[in-house]
Amino acid sequence: MAQLHLLSPAGFRAAGVYAGIKTKQNPDVGLLLCDRSATAAAVFTTNKVFAAPVKVGRAHVKSGKLRGVVVNAGNANACTGKQGERDALRMCEIAASIAKCKKTEILPSSTGIIGHLLPMRKLERGIVEAGQYLGTSLEHARLFAAAILTTDIKRKEAATSFKVGKRTVTLAGVCKGSGMIGPRMSLAGPSASSKKPLHATMLAYLTTDAAIGPPLLRKLLEGASDRSFNAVTVDDHTSTNDTACILASGASAAKVSSSKDARTFAAALEEVCRSLAYQIAADGEGATKVVAITVRRAKNTEAATAMARAIANSPLVKCAMHGNDPNWGRIVSAAGLAGVPFDPEKCVLTLQKTVVFRAGRPIEFDANAVSERLDAPEVTVDLDCRAGTGEATVWTCDLSKEYVTINADYHT
Amino acid sequence: MAQLHLLSPAGFRAAGVYAGIKTKQNPDVGLLLCDRSATAAAVFTTNKVFAAPVKVGRAHVKSGKLRGVVVNAGNANACTGKQGERDALRMCEIAASIAKCKKTEILPSSTGIIGHLLPMRKLERGIVEAGQYLGTSLEHARLFAAAILTTDIKRKEAATSFKVGKRTVTLAGVCKGSGMIGPRMSLAGPSASSKKPLHATMLAYLTTDAAIGPPLLRKLLEGASDRSFNAVTVDDHTSTNDTACILASGASAAKVSSSKDARTFAAALEEVCRSLAYQIAADGEGATKVVAITVRRAKNTEAATAMARAIANSPLVKCAMHGNDPNWGRIVSAAGLAGVPFDPEKCVLTLQKTVVFRAGRPIEFDANAVSERLDAPEVTVDLDCRAGTGEATVWTCDLSKEYVTINADYHT
Repeated sequence: MAQLHLLSPAGFRAAGVYAGIKTKQNPDVGLLLCDRSATAAAVFTTNKVFAAPVKVGRAHVKSGKLRGVVVNAGNANACTGKQGERDALRMCEIAASIAKCKKTEILPSSTGIIGHLLPMRKLERGIVEAGQYLGTSLEHARLFAAAILTTDIKRKEAATSFKVGKRTVTLAGVCKGSGMIGPRMSLAGPSASSKKPLHATMLAYLTTDAAIGPPLLRKLLEGASDRSFNAVTVDDHTSTNDTACILASGASAAKVSSSKDARTFAAALEEVCRSLAYQIAADGEGATKVVAITVRRAKNTEAATAMARAIANSPLVKCAMHGNDPNWGRIVSAAGLAGVPFDPEKCVLTLQKTVVFRAGRPIEFDANAVSERLDAPEVTVDLDCRAGTGEATVWTCDLSKEYVTINADYHT
Repeated sequence: MAQLHLLSPAGFRAAGVYAGIKTKQNPDVGLLLCDRSATAAAVFTTNKVFAAPVKVGRAHVKSGKLRGVVVNAGNANACTGKQGERDALRMCEIAASIAKCKKTEILPSSTGIIGHLLPMRKLERGIVEAGQYLGTSLEHARLFAAAILTTDIKRKEAATSFKVGKRTVTLAGVCKGSGMIGPRMSLAGPSASSKKPLHATMLAYLTTDAAIGPPLLRKLLEGASDRSFNAVTVDDHTSTNDTACILASGASAAKVSSSKDARTFAAALEEVCRSLAYQIAADGEGATKVVAITVRRAKNTEAATAMARAIANSPLVKCAMHGNDPNWGRIVSAAGLAGVPFDPEKCVLTLQKTVVFRAGRPIEFDANAVSERLDAPEVTVDLDCRAGTGEATVWTCDLSKEYVTINADYHT
């Protein structure tokens, strides 16, 4: 069987071209179109400061129907005022002229430096050029995936297929994200809730040829995002531009509406989103390893999530993981600062399969052996609170000197 | 006039000795005693995971009277179970035998690695030895100040004097803190509130010869801490051991009870605490500069504090400051993720006295000139929200490769 990719679901074409927005000569403008009106859902950053394309995208996706997305990397079009909004709309207009649809049927995205107006001459030319190179091959999918990257080292791609009745449905996605990563996306705009959003621009675009209605697609995307993209943090800095958008072409004629089919679809969507989210953690700025933090048997899911995030966001924990240092005190103390009920006397902390802390006391363990096992591409931290049924996993990466190098000199 | 120091207020003696707990041969056991029963107040970490000395200290300070404090560095006595509590009490017992008081009149503190039992043989010998070297000189004050340090490079000391009626009162303090710094101390134990505690062990000991009652001293210490120690963050990791304790000997016979005298005392206390807090930021692990973040005209003080903290805790902002990079988009976006109402269209961001963002749009400015001005020991970030009367200042430091070096290899 051929390798599945973003354009495997029937009905989609894409392109990625270099328009001169990024400094390095890599694709920086992407266009993904559906040849019919697709059911669409999207979640966006909850940062109070959100970019122009997020404002425009929120409005355009409301109808539940889109024909495509247009993206640029190298410039976030954030903190750019009214001109920024006009520019985001102009991106849609050009993409719409290619798709032969209304500009409100296009979702725009941007990622890159904040506070600079988009170089519209280059960008307009780039979108037009992308329109001339649209195609359905693996290579087209890869060029689109490459066009959305910024400080990412690798493309991030995932796909799966499954049966709905007797029909085969394909679901695929690409994403980007390396720095300013701590998404907390939601369907609504930035809420007044006390939820602390994290950061990094992460962008994700998903395609499927399932036939599904907008309300169900929204609900399933929101759930999948919470357990995937919203469970990744690199630097706990929720971006102004975070966006995940799914387009369902319906071209497979497989209708997802029964609760059984919805569950199947949800599982596939979550699988793809989790794979993409994991790839973000693995490609975090300066990362040498993924750290997968699971908090189990916490009072409830919210408590588990808060504790896992607190651990994941501690620079002390991240540095210890970088140095293969089984300094578990940092992990337990980080869990204690999540602001949720937590009794260290009851919990058990396991680091790379070795119990290091139990019943409020240190356990004798071979620190050198654990240190050797920490020298791995994936490290697991497991905190069993023995207090309830809440469970959550958060993925992060270690904190290296390379992270500082990348971020101390990004702008100038 | 001679230089004021921790032992300038009448009634106090101190010592610092090397007991072999730290790897490097620097003082690691400190003893500070008052020759009479002092009025005492203390604030402690709000981390749900708190060290044995914090548990014991909370109980001992409740009476509002103490004879002194005993401190060790190199081992935090945290996550050490019942044995840890016994060890903390034993520290008090030995100190009490020197002061000729009850063990409940001594407050114990520890700082260092989490999850290891205290080396009690060495420590007991150290406390006894400290008891033999007690004195009131500048040198004694410095040895005590040195004995509480861990990864700190410099001693942290501050002192002032003021008039209460016709009498002169002296107020002084020392502190430590370099990593695991993000204190959110309070009088009470860890509360169930949603306040997110930060981290790093910070310890502070303050002396005064004023005569003041316990309730007023508690109230003034809490207020001063909130605007000083609790406004510093290095790594947003609230320690298991954070403690700030003040002892008032009353030896000056200057009674602080009128609201005018209380205000004078409060101002002096805040001055000393702010100086100490600033020194913590300046000596943050790997720090090359202090970043002072002021958010003004926010909706209220809580909103201003949340936004200032969100900016201070963004690794992206901290790296940009390290690289002298006027990448202000990271600052505005960090403010937006504090989860409090914030309208970027109304705000004005000033970086080292240069306006870089206003009315939701970038401002033309000379990036090279601002970059040159960022290359300074103190950088000021000023965000005017034009939305209310709330104001807060938070101090942090930049994030350097040296931070990673220090923390990737602390344990092993």
